[in-house]
Amino acid sequence: MELLKVDTIAQAREKIRALAGPLFTRTVTVPLTEAAGLILAADIQATEDLPGFTRSTVDGYAVIAADTAGAGESIPVVLALQGAVEMGKPAAAGVPGGISAGQCAYIPTGGMLPAGADSVVMVEQSEGFGDQNVGIYGAVAPGENVIHAGDDAKAGAVLLKVGTRLRAQELGALAGAGFVRVPVFSSPLMAIISTGDEIIDPSATLQPGQVRDINTTALRAQAKACGYQVTRALVLPDVEERLSQRVAALMQSNDVVVLSGGSSQGEKDATARIIAGLADNGVLTHGLAVKPGKPTITGFDAASQTLLIGLPGHPLSAMMVFEVLLAWLLVEATGARHPLAVPATLAFNLATAAGKDTLQLVALSQGGAGDTIPTLIATPIHAKSGLITKLTEADGYLWIDRNTEGLRAGDTVAVHPFTM
Amino acid sequence: MELLKVDTIAQAREKIRALAGPLFTRTVTVPLTEAAGLILAADIQATEDLPGFTRSTVDGYAVIAADTAGAGESIPVVLALQGAVEMGKPAAAGVPGGISAGQCAYIPTGGMLPAGADSVVMVEQSEGFGDQNVGIYGAVAPGENVIHAGDDAKAGAVLLKVGTRLRAQELGALAGAGFVRVPVFSSPLMAIISTGDEIIDPSATLQPGQVRDINTTALRAQAKACGYQVTRALVLPDVEERLSQRVAALMQSNDVVVLSGGSSQGEKDATARIIAGLADNGVLTHGLAVKPGKPTITGFDAASQTLLIGLPGHPLSAMMVFEVLLAWLLVEATGARHPLAVPATLAFNLATAAGKDTLQLVALSQGGAGDTIPTLIATPIHAKSGLITKLTEADGYLWIDRNTEGLRAGDTVAVHPFTM
Repeated sequence: MELLKVDTIAQAREKIRALAGPLFTRTVTVPLTEAAGLILAADIQATEDLPGFTRSTVDGYAVIAADTAGAGESIPVVLALQGAVEMGKPAAAGVPGGISAGQCAYIPTGGMLPAGADSVVMVEQSEGFGDQNVGIYGAVAPGENVIHAGDDAKAGAVLLKVGTRLRAQELGALAGAGFVRVPVFSSPLMAIISTGDEIIDPSATLQPGQVRDINTTALRAQAKACGYQVTRALVLPDVEERLSQRVAALMQSNDVVVLSGGSSQGEKDATARIIAGLADNGVLTHGLAVKPGKPTITGFDAASQTLLIGLPGHPLSAMMVFEVLLAWLLVEATGARHPLAVPATLAFNLATAAGKDTLQLVALSQGGAGDTIPTLIATPIHAKSGLITKLTEADGYLWIDRNTEGLRAGDTVAVHPFTM
Repeated sequence: MELLKVDTIAQAREKIRALAGPLFTRTVTVPLTEAAGLILAADIQATEDLPGFTRSTVDGYAVIAADTAGAGESIPVVLALQGAVEMGKPAAAGVPGGISAGQCAYIPTGGMLPAGADSVVMVEQSEGFGDQNVGIYGAVAPGENVIHAGDDAKAGAVLLKVGTRLRAQELGALAGAGFVRVPVFSSPLMAIISTGDEIIDPSATLQPGQVRDINTTALRAQAKACGYQVTRALVLPDVEERLSQRVAALMQSNDVVVLSGGSSQGEKDATARIIAGLADNGVLTHGLAVKPGKPTITGFDAASQTLLIGLPGHPLSAMMVFEVLLAWLLVEATGARHPLAVPATLAFNLATAAGKDTLQLVALSQGGAGDTIPTLIATPIHAKSGLITKLTEADGYLWIDRNTEGLRAGDTVAVHPFTM
């Protein structure tokens, strides 16, 4: 049996990052339609100017700005109409010679600026004078109402950096730049086991003394929300040798094996022995100095390249530790941006635990006067461990440092929103 | 042709909510493994007490609290050991007669409290005196270290309300209460068409004057992130009659048909004619009094029960209008909670548009001193319409009322985070 290795969250994080981080940086190339929510695995450079040609941003007349000097609401400048730009075609198709001094050409929004023109007068500031001439009732500056070739991105510029989470707008930008497949970090493979002699599958009939398993359902959903691919989620009886064999088998085809359960000391010891026996690097962390989450065990097996995590059996504790270790690790290892902490006003006084950090559940609600004087109210949720319904009221948590001597109603606190 | 019906966002929302809202309340029952992110379509009541029996929250000895009165670190109370509770079994299996005055029984964390006991003394406050007796070194109160049957939820209590978004913790609570399938609102079916004579598929080779389509890719991802099921996402040429036939066909099998494109006045008029011709309720909104987003058209066809939305062609404008109308509608119609606006400090002065609301993109960054004095900084992003790369820098937007006379650096502003 290993000596106890009680770590702070920061210490436990650093150990798993150093050993397991590289497992999270395998890459795969996927079509844009399958890339939503994934993390870009390489910088993406524009292969050409975007847009590829100078475009009008309004319906109007392509002109040489200098020709419009002096035009006003009552004194038009009259220009000779040379044709009309057609959408989706080279400007020369509709305006063969381009335009020269004293000339103009009709151009729709998004149309290609004809040769010679440097700006566009909005149609609202013009009037047709017969078929041949157009009166311009306002002066424009060079470049006005125009997007130049390369304004969105120059050829060779980095469009998106490695570590970018691909949302709808990033996928749109990639499509616009001609990328239909992108390199992303592969979702790490995770197996989840929930154990305990009292735990039964949620669909089974309860006998006295038994409870239905919560953790495979909750952790599976949490893992998927974070970006893991869950290969198995099993409820297994607490028989140490069989459990150990099962974990060993799952280590061959997963990056992370999560064991939850073992609320009693005997069960916790069994989880520690299983991890100690299977991880060739031994136990990394045995006990987290955080409330809730103390009975947490981590280990890393270099031979099979697997991270082993023993989570507390209580659902609330298991989910909080998953959040601060495993959700964090996936973001950290891929270089993605960590979720921003949100400032909120504490609804009532909070005592803190001495000697260890506290993860305090809070519900968020909108305070203040909406968009005028916005605030968020953070209301602490007190839940005995083992209760799950309280967790359904929470939107995030406060991470209260061990040295903080209590928080007062009205204090501004940092709320870490759940990724689950 | 309809007369212009320029609406505020609130007016446009109310019109589509009244007519199309009922399309969003169809329900379906799904297994928990497929329910993540969906909205609960009915209240869920506990069918039994949770937990179903009174449990210990620690490893220790089940006792009658009154027997421990006077016990202290140096003066133990000695109780007669009656057996040991086994995990997952009725207490009577290990402690057949329960306990009476002067007696105790070993109990592991999560074990069922034996008959007669009302509390548990932690094992750390006890010492075995031979096989028959246990010394108790601390007094407990009735109910101490115990979760009572029904503490998490009483039989008949509402566990989760209709309109609840199912996250990992809600799915866990449902599993714990024995629900393996749940009623949720069906994802509405949406078809997306991007048109424009200059628009080509992102995988095609650009010719001069052409641009690659951004909107089918971006809007498809945005729709999925909001909870729509996208049945088709097509790039079609801007031929009014063929487009109209295609929309009519898609209306038969979708709840929402989105048309984006038509940046020029002629194209915008064509979209309006198509919607006016196909929606038996006619055009509801023709023009939104918001920047960006003016060229927005809505209509509803009662015969086919389809909402028709014409979005601006510019990707940035199209996505913003999708966010404030279609993302909003799905939340509103299902009774789910709207995303909370987050308070942030404005990084620099902002001028506002006269006479219409402004949706101002902002990037968020962490300011202040982390968890000690947390703040968020909102940095406005200025993007010419038509540029997409700027949207990739944004985390949300400010909704600035038409009557606001500019915002100053340092003001606290409400940031609406993107759902995309």
